[in-house]
Amino acid sequence: MSAKPALRLDAEEIAAFLNDVYPGAMENFSIEDVQPMSARIRMPFKPWRLRPGGTISGPSLMALADTGLWVALLGMIGREPLSVTSHLDIDFLRKPAPADVIAHTTLHKLGRRLAVGDVIMYSDGEDRPCARASVTYAIPSSYAGPSS
Amino acid sequence: MSAKPALRLDAEEIAAFLNDVYPGAMENFSIEDVQPMSARIRMPFKPWRLRPGGTISGPSLMALADTGLWVALLGMIGREPLSVTSHLDIDFLRKPAPADVIAHTTLHKLGRRLAVGDVIMYSDGEDRPCARASVTYAIPSSYAGPSS
Amino acid sequence: MSAKPALRLDAEEIAAFLNDVYPGAMENFSIEDVQPMSARIRMPFKPWRLRPGGTISGPSLMALADTGLWVALLGMIGREPLSVTSHLDIDFLRKPAPADVIAHTTLHKLGRRLAVGDVIMYSDGEDRPCARASVTYAIPSSYAGPSS
Amino acid sequence: MSAKPALRLDAEEIAAFLNDVYPGAMENFSIEDVQPMSARIRMPFKPWRLRPGGTISGPSLMALADTGLWVALLGMIGREPLSVTSHLDIDFLRKPAPADVIAHTTLHKLGRRLAVGDVIMYSDGEDRPCARASVTYAIPSSYAGPSS
Repeated sequence: MSAKPALRLDAEEIAAFLNDVYPGAMENFSIEDVQPMSARIRMPFKPWRLRPGGTISGPSLMALADTGLWVALLGMIGREPLSVTSHLDIDFLRKPAPADVIAHTTLHKLGRRLAVGDVIMYSDGEDRPCARASVTYAIPSSYAGPSS
Repeated sequence: MSAKPALRLDAEEIAAFLNDVYPGAMENFSIEDVQPMSARIRMPFKPWRLRPGGTISGPSLMALADTGLWVALLGMIGREPLSVTSHLDIDFLRKPAPADVIAHTTLHKLGRRLAVGDVIMYSDGEDRPCARASVTYAIPSSYAGPSS
Repeated sequence: MSAKPALRLDAEEIAAFLNDVYPGAMENFSIEDVQPMSARIRMPFKPWRLRPGGTISGPSLMALADTGLWVALLGMIGREPLSVTSHLDIDFLRKPAPADVIAHTTLHKLGRRLAVGDVIMYSDGEDRPCARASVTYAIPSSYAGPSS
Repeated sequence: MSAKPALRLDAEEIAAFLNDVYPGAMENFSIEDVQPMSARIRMPFKPWRLRPGGTISGPSLMALADTGLWVALLGMIGREPLSVTSHLDIDFLRKPAPADVIAHTTLHKLGRRLAVGDVIMYSDGEDRPCARASVTYAIPSSYAGPSS
């Protein structure tokens, strides 16, 4: 009963859906793994993401956190009309090196109206995170999925 | 004694400094007003800021909040080595129209090590905000300004 | 059309309703003013609120922020079934003196499902805030009020 | 080199220190486990923690999150002058049953000036969290520990 609900979409299907509704989205991110209530996505390094000092910009990390949790959410709710971010908070912990950044996302709640989760971000090869975030998505009322 | 400290830089000087340390920054924003402990900046509409549905993207609003509070901070501390954002949280309140967005920022604390403030954002012409944010900046230890 | 909706309850009616649904609530707080989309409430000093060092405890300020925004919300939606806090974030800015604390709350959004607002808190007699908070309330689906 | 630093205090020593500096603190919480950069603490059920509807109050969960991360921090920095919470944000995910609540805390950053971590809270016996929080502590400048 409290088992994790099954996935509705796998990594490939999510990438295809995102590219459909948000053309170009997947030029900036790649989905590495999707599990029930969690996902791992990668933001490949691009020079335009750097800010003075040679670190990845804050808005880039915010976009990574936002997209990362969206991917985990789509895995659970499928090709539903667009959910929208209602809240995001982020702590910048260490200067992120000019490298790929990997986001590990965990959904803590998937309700009928709100989904909430955490994101921990690492520069590729580092074992201490460069940022943490939590994100809330408002789910459109057409969705009649699991309440929890 | 508890009077607000005076401005060290005006809007024009801040814009020049930002363009120096972060080339191109002021292509995306214009500083409309700077007062002690507050500022108002504008993010002119650009089509590339839109996301599906015709609204301004979340990362654009986050960048506006982040930059807006930085402007207020620079007005107070002057041409100091770069402060860095350590925390940002944002609530998306209403879908922002495809229009300029104006950010009203207020510094609530300007300490030796941390500065904290609020940002309220409005689509141009609207009287209800499209987003609110709060932002914390870590101030480099070389700065020996007011403690409060 | 975008005028602020009128108040459904005044300060006295809100205090009576809170005492009804949450007996004892008003021993700890007093409502000083309620306006459309805003309120001011006071948390009278009590020695048990102190933590080592002689400052008001963090959880006391959190409870003040939470209650303060609830008061502003009740002014707008009236004697509705209980709304619940879904998110709260707070920045502690200065050590609050052993004194009353006054919270100024502003609702930025009052939708059908979510209400979001800011709270700025001052030790009595101080002109610089000791804390800021933002709070989100989830509104029960029985409520069919203004969408915005 | 990037190995987790060792513990300076174990669970018993932390409880004794907390009771010293904050008499009575450990009546409300018990420390179940302390590891490098993480801890698990329990908030035993008390009827006075209930709010209308029979759920644990929000401020109680906030105090649990705050204390939980403090315990993890003390394990790492030892009997240092009091750190203070500078930021806390919390999402309430599910109504917490009238039962013990267990907090799993993880420090993501332990710098010279700031410590940042996450807290996931569960009602005893539940496998889905009732709340998540992140907390930032400001560390007094007398502390000259690890920078990371």
